[in-house]
Amino acid sequence: MNETVRQAGVAAATSTRVKEILSWYGADNVGVLTNLSRMLNHGRLAGSGRLVILPVDQGFEHGPARSFAANPPAYDPRYHFELAIEAGCNAYAAPLGFMEAGARDYAGEIPLILKLNDNDSLRDDSDPNQASTGSVEDALRLGCVAIGFTIYPGSAYEHTMYERLRAYAEEAKRHGLAVVVWSYPRGSSMGKSGETAIDVVGYAAQIAAQLGAHIIKVKLPTAHIEQDAARKVYEKQGIPIATLAERVRHVVQCSFAGRRIVIFSGGAANFDDEKLFDEIRAIREGGGFGSIIGRNSFQRQRSDAIRMLRTVMDIYAS
Amino acid sequence: MNETVRQAGVAAATSTRVKEILSWYGADNVGVLTNLSRMLNHGRLAGSGRLVILPVDQGFEHGPARSFAANPPAYDPRYHFELAIEAGCNAYAAPLGFMEAGARDYAGEIPLILKLNDNDSLRDDSDPNQASTGSVEDALRLGCVAIGFTIYPGSAYEHTMYERLRAYAEEAKRHGLAVVVWSYPRGSSMGKSGETAIDVVGYAAQIAAQLGAHIIKVKLPTAHIEQDAARKVYEKQGIPIATLAERVRHVVQCSFAGRRIVIFSGGAANFDDEKLFDEIRAIREGGGFGSIIGRNSFQRQRSDAIRMLRTVMDIYAS
Amino acid sequence: MNETVRQAGVAAATSTRVKEILSWYGADNVGVLTNLSRMLNHGRLAGSGRLVILPVDQGFEHGPARSFAANPPAYDPRYHFELAIEAGCNAYAAPLGFMEAGARDYAGEIPLILKLNDNDSLRDDSDPNQASTGSVEDALRLGCVAIGFTIYPGSAYEHTMYERLRAYAEEAKRHGLAVVVWSYPRGSSMGKSGETAIDVVGYAAQIAAQLGAHIIKVKLPTAHIEQDAARKVYEKQGIPIATLAERVRHVVQCSFAGRRIVIFSGGAANFDDEKLFDEIRAIREGGGFGSIIGRNSFQRQRSDAIRMLRTVMDIYAS
Amino acid sequence: MNETVRQAGVAAATSTRVKEILSWYGADNVGVLTNLSRMLNHGRLAGSGRLVILPVDQGFEHGPARSFAANPPAYDPRYHFELAIEAGCNAYAAPLGFMEAGARDYAGEIPLILKLNDNDSLRDDSDPNQASTGSVEDALRLGCVAIGFTIYPGSAYEHTMYERLRAYAEEAKRHGLAVVVWSYPRGSSMGKSGETAIDVVGYAAQIAAQLGAHIIKVKLPTAHIEQDAARKVYEKQGIPIATLAERVRHVVQCSFAGRRIVIFSGGAANFDDEKLFDEIRAIREGGGFGSIIGRNSFQRQRSDAIRMLRTVMDIYAS
Amino acid sequence: MNETVRQAGVAAATSTRVKEILSWYGADNVGVLTNLSRMLNHGRLAGSGRLVILPVDQGFEHGPARSFAANPPAYDPRYHFELAIEAGCNAYAAPLGFMEAGARDYAGEIPLILKLNDNDSLRDDSDPNQASTGSVEDALRLGCVAIGFTIYPGSAYEHTMYERLRAYAEEAKRHGLAVVVWSYPRGSSMGKSGETAIDVVGYAAQIAAQLGAHIIKVKLPTAHIEQDAARKVYEKQGIPIATLAERVRHVVQCSFAGRRIVIFSGGAANFDDEKLFDEIRAIREGGGFGSIIGRNSFQRQRSDAIRMLRTVMDIYAS
Repeated sequence: MNETVRQAGVAAATSTRVKEILSWYGADNVGVLTNLSRMLNHGRLAGSGRLVILPVDQGFEHGPARSFAANPPAYDPRYHFELAIEAGCNAYAAPLGFMEAGARDYAGEIPLILKLNDNDSLRDDSDPNQASTGSVEDALRLGCVAIGFTIYPGSAYEHTMYERLRAYAEEAKRHGLAVVVWSYPRGSSMGKSGETAIDVVGYAAQIAAQLGAHIIKVKLPTAHIEQDAARKVYEKQGIPIATLAERVRHVVQCSFAGRRIVIFSGGAANFDDEKLFDEIRAIREGGGFGSIIGRNSFQRQRSDAIRMLRTVMDIYAS
Repeated sequence: MNETVRQAGVAAATSTRVKEILSWYGADNVGVLTNLSRMLNHGRLAGSGRLVILPVDQGFEHGPARSFAANPPAYDPRYHFELAIEAGCNAYAAPLGFMEAGARDYAGEIPLILKLNDNDSLRDDSDPNQASTGSVEDALRLGCVAIGFTIYPGSAYEHTMYERLRAYAEEAKRHGLAVVVWSYPRGSSMGKSGETAIDVVGYAAQIAAQLGAHIIKVKLPTAHIEQDAARKVYEKQGIPIATLAERVRHVVQCSFAGRRIVIFSGGAANFDDEKLFDEIRAIREGGGFGSIIGRNSFQRQRSDAIRMLRTVMDIYAS
Repeated sequence: MNETVRQAGVAAATSTRVKEILSWYGADNVGVLTNLSRMLNHGRLAGSGRLVILPVDQGFEHGPARSFAANPPAYDPRYHFELAIEAGCNAYAAPLGFMEAGARDYAGEIPLILKLNDNDSLRDDSDPNQASTGSVEDALRLGCVAIGFTIYPGSAYEHTMYERLRAYAEEAKRHGLAVVVWSYPRGSSMGKSGETAIDVVGYAAQIAAQLGAHIIKVKLPTAHIEQDAARKVYEKQGIPIATLAERVRHVVQCSFAGRRIVIFSGGAANFDDEKLFDEIRAIREGGGFGSIIGRNSFQRQRSDAIRMLRTVMDIYAS
Repeated sequence: MNETVRQAGVAAATSTRVKEILSWYGADNVGVLTNLSRMLNHGRLAGSGRLVILPVDQGFEHGPARSFAANPPAYDPRYHFELAIEAGCNAYAAPLGFMEAGARDYAGEIPLILKLNDNDSLRDDSDPNQASTGSVEDALRLGCVAIGFTIYPGSAYEHTMYERLRAYAEEAKRHGLAVVVWSYPRGSSMGKSGETAIDVVGYAAQIAAQLGAHIIKVKLPTAHIEQDAARKVYEKQGIPIATLAERVRHVVQCSFAGRRIVIFSGGAANFDDEKLFDEIRAIREGGGFGSIIGRNSFQRQRSDAIRMLRTVMDIYAS
Repeated sequence: MNETVRQAGVAAATSTRVKEILSWYGADNVGVLTNLSRMLNHGRLAGSGRLVILPVDQGFEHGPARSFAANPPAYDPRYHFELAIEAGCNAYAAPLGFMEAGARDYAGEIPLILKLNDNDSLRDDSDPNQASTGSVEDALRLGCVAIGFTIYPGSAYEHTMYERLRAYAEEAKRHGLAVVVWSYPRGSSMGKSGETAIDVVGYAAQIAAQLGAHIIKVKLPTAHIEQDAARKVYEKQGIPIATLAERVRHVVQCSFAGRRIVIFSGGAANFDDEKLFDEIRAIREGGGFGSIIGRNSFQRQRSDAIRMLRTVMDIYAS
């Protein structure tokens, strides 16, 4: 038996920080805590309380060519398992098809999050909805640690999504699975700039937390304030939102004063890496728990993606 | 064992007034009576037949910054449990996320009401609806004494809400949980002033009672009369509605001649306290059973909130 | 509102000791903790971490005349509710019929434990069994905090009872109810003296704990050792079992090193009170959590019973 | 972030040997493979294809004093979690009560196997049976990787146990849990020496494998042959069973030619350690997959137990 | 039974290519693999990894006269079973009625795919939907190897169809049936030319794969690009789509890099055969897995159809 393998087991004892995080989820059963712990204790950031997750649902959401043509090996579902494992991510998230197409080959090698709803972009809905595309039973038979679910707060269909999330989350939690919620404000009620406005992103994080999410994913907020009623409060209370770190800190505060794990998306592909790393530093400085980086990871060459992801992890670990 | 603790047990025998109140709920099983009794026998108003409840669903309903920025410790879900306990409230009401985030830490310290539906304010619907965000199973596993549910009489979606309430209430009652209904008239069928019109508030209380609510929460009514058909009757019969106490008395009458517990909201924050205390005196004088005070409690400093809530309780207890 | 009632609410904050006890039940949901807390925070021993429970299943187990003729008011089911309330017990336990016959009259006045199985003494079985006589649904509709269940370790029917307990306990825990197990060794495999032998009683406590009981009730053990295999260990390890306090301490140790609540029966009626009080002192000294006293309570005059029970509580509280 | 923690994640990639083992379970879903992988990749033997498991069901099976008096800290359920974690075992197995009493405190720190049936030794049955004491739902809510189940091939009740195992295993596998079977020949059909006879132990391993077990636990076999019909074959074919390593090799062969994981019990306590280590060497030499060592681990001082278990693991890893 | 068919049985040992294809479906149970294998190992293309399937749902979709008048024997449901068997197709697909009308007569002679949804053309919906017309239970009782299901990506009802497919596929897979998805872009969101645009067909294949299809059927794509966001990518990345073979290759890539079976429709009837055979050559050259040829088969004389289908198979087999 080689030394590295032996150390893997020895190092598995849960860190103080992970134990602290788990203590926030007192209403959840031990199965849920175990699966949260599996994500928090896996990969290069194991034990640090930070997470970098690889999500690949863009094949469904944006179409295969737009998602994978820039890096054709990414058409293969196995590519993403390997990328997430080799980069040392905490978890890999995908819809049913991608998950089924690789789960046996990489069984036990990385915590898996099954996305249970998806939406394509063949239609242009001003008020978008999502279709249920998987089940809690699927997540269990595929050995997943969590379910993933997208809500669009602000859409005319928001209640439909909230209610499906409620039902899925209840079943998932009873069976010991964690619940990861993508909370993306969208809909005819707001302009494009509203989707990333600081008040709206904070609100979206709060909604996901109130719906019982264990891990919340939001977009990085701008300093724009969308809602008039909110603007009055931000101005009156002088909530600091000038810098990205301040805005991250505010979103963390909106996530139950930091007692829910909130992570941030890594933005579009072909992004300037230095700008990305600055964002990661701001997330770290603002107390964010990590990143979920999809397109920016798999739409570049594998070696480059691994270098980038490891740099991101090094920033979080520093 | 200290003396105070010993007395706590001794004093647990149910008062004559509480027994009288319980006698109104003859169709309910003993589990429901027990849970109503737990609320009525808890806190500073224990045994008095009056209730002051702390509700905190504004994070979902209005957004986190609008709700908590004025008093940042309130971003933390534990804050509200502690506020309700320290102030001596009869119960604490919250949606799933807030409840899950504190319930284990304060197990058994205060009766809990799980809000089972919520609505956000990212959309501006002239006819609002609510999304189901929790279940009776959730309420049981979280040790709650009651479920809470909001209806918007007058909205185009009112029947949807009535029917969901019916199903939830049936299940809750079978399992021994009490049913608390927030009855807020709203919708394109009425103007803003109609939402608090005396005829409409009385009607909303009656609807909640007819739907099987054990405890009804309405807003304090104005002397405005919204519906023409109602105005004729109020004028012909000379129903006294000039003073707030008279209007409270009328709403209590509309709630099955006072044989259902009806409580009143405490209004928006930054309210003038003396005006609030006058309202409480009017509620007491009009035979109202108490108050449910959210924003006015948690949007001010903790010590000030406790002083205010205790003053309110002292007025009810006097 | 009188002062005593007000203090009742104020004193409801859970004591350090109760919080410590609740921390042992980490796999249970908040509902179970809440109901354990309700028992631990009720009555004269509220907050002390000790319990005195009144159980009245003897009408079924021994027949009515043997049970109640010595104190005829005890034929009336209401008598026992009132006795438990007036004496300041932590809880009252009874089978379905007795519970249904009084529960509405005393709703909310004392935590209730519904016995879900019973056995009569019309037959004399060397290997006794118990019949299921209630359900978890019954316990919920009657507002109970716990289910009670009897097992006879050592009986030829022990597996039947273990398996029924397993199913009941799973359902009860999911719905937030606590599980109280009467663990009474009995059967053709052992002599009468074996039923209270220290090794057998310790074993019976362990079995109940392994089956998932939150509260375990056993008989006070004698210094007799029943099983040869056990005797060797007791002698070799020099386990102290000479005094009653030592034996209680050993039974507490057998109950997960004291991390499960274990209480002791109060013995037969017409017992010498001073001898009873000595036993209570031994239970207290040995770290036992309290007593469950049936016949000795209700087979004497009410005022005498209350005096006795309060003396027992005073000993525990001292 | 310290270096050890980082390596833990990096080393998580599944070894060639583990992948080979997983390939034998082609009819199982990915969830089962994931949970087998979790055991095989945990602890000091992570990645080696060998397992050392700590089982503690003796409190139920033999009684608490016989199990824990030799090392009183072992009365505490937390002791065993800590022992298994500190020694670097692959998994910890226990009945419901012990599991519930520690699972939240050590969530995610070691793979857990919930024993779903148990038998006490208060009765002396020549044909023993086991009682169901847990459920697959319990295993899921407690975050377990596997269920454990005991069968007594040869007992008059063997079919009852086989059929219950079948039902439990079907449900467990559908939900992604692995199935560990304790296969202990016993009953009036055989003498005491028959229980460990090589033909009988090989037969017991085969039965467990045919019932769908993923991991099989048997006792170390003697050279005794119990069944006449078998003896003729062993003699005619000249099956080598003279040495322990030869007998282990035969049992491995009986377990689907080594395509099912078969592990061996560690014998009674107070065993001579050198003799134990010789047995481990024989298991390794015979191709056995590891050991499950209960009494011999927890009936000695903790530091001594850890030293012994680590020596056992070093032998397997060498 | 003719010689060729007999040889099919003799040759039933699975080829290397079929084993490779089955290896892509690692998350599926053995039942699903068995049924995929039945199709891949049946007919003239048995073992080649290519498929030609006869689908006859046009009676429902287009009406009987439009479907069958050109070749009246095709009104008879038995006609199609015999055509598929005699031509040596891999499978025959039809709705409930056609299937029930012939399944007993030809039991075991050809793998059957039960279409579970259908749409008629009595209404002209710009956003079409499909009605559920069969069940998984039907497929099992009729001895089918797979269910068939149509989705219309781009229709306003796309989510309804995705969700029904999800539920059907979950049930089918659990029962060991394969899932064949007809993915036909359609709806008010796109023009007629968009339905076969290369970007849209690739996207439709991806959606079916992500929804968990084992076999995907799409139309042959044109070089038109429908979506602006896609066009940028196709141009920037220089994705070759000039020839039909290139476009087929791209669609295969969009189907999980060729790790899902994707087959192409055979176009409208009365097609020029040479043009058809050129298309088949392009599918073969582009790595497509085969064809599903309905109208073009049954809307001509039987002997002609058989000649045509065998020519198609010969092209694939070459």
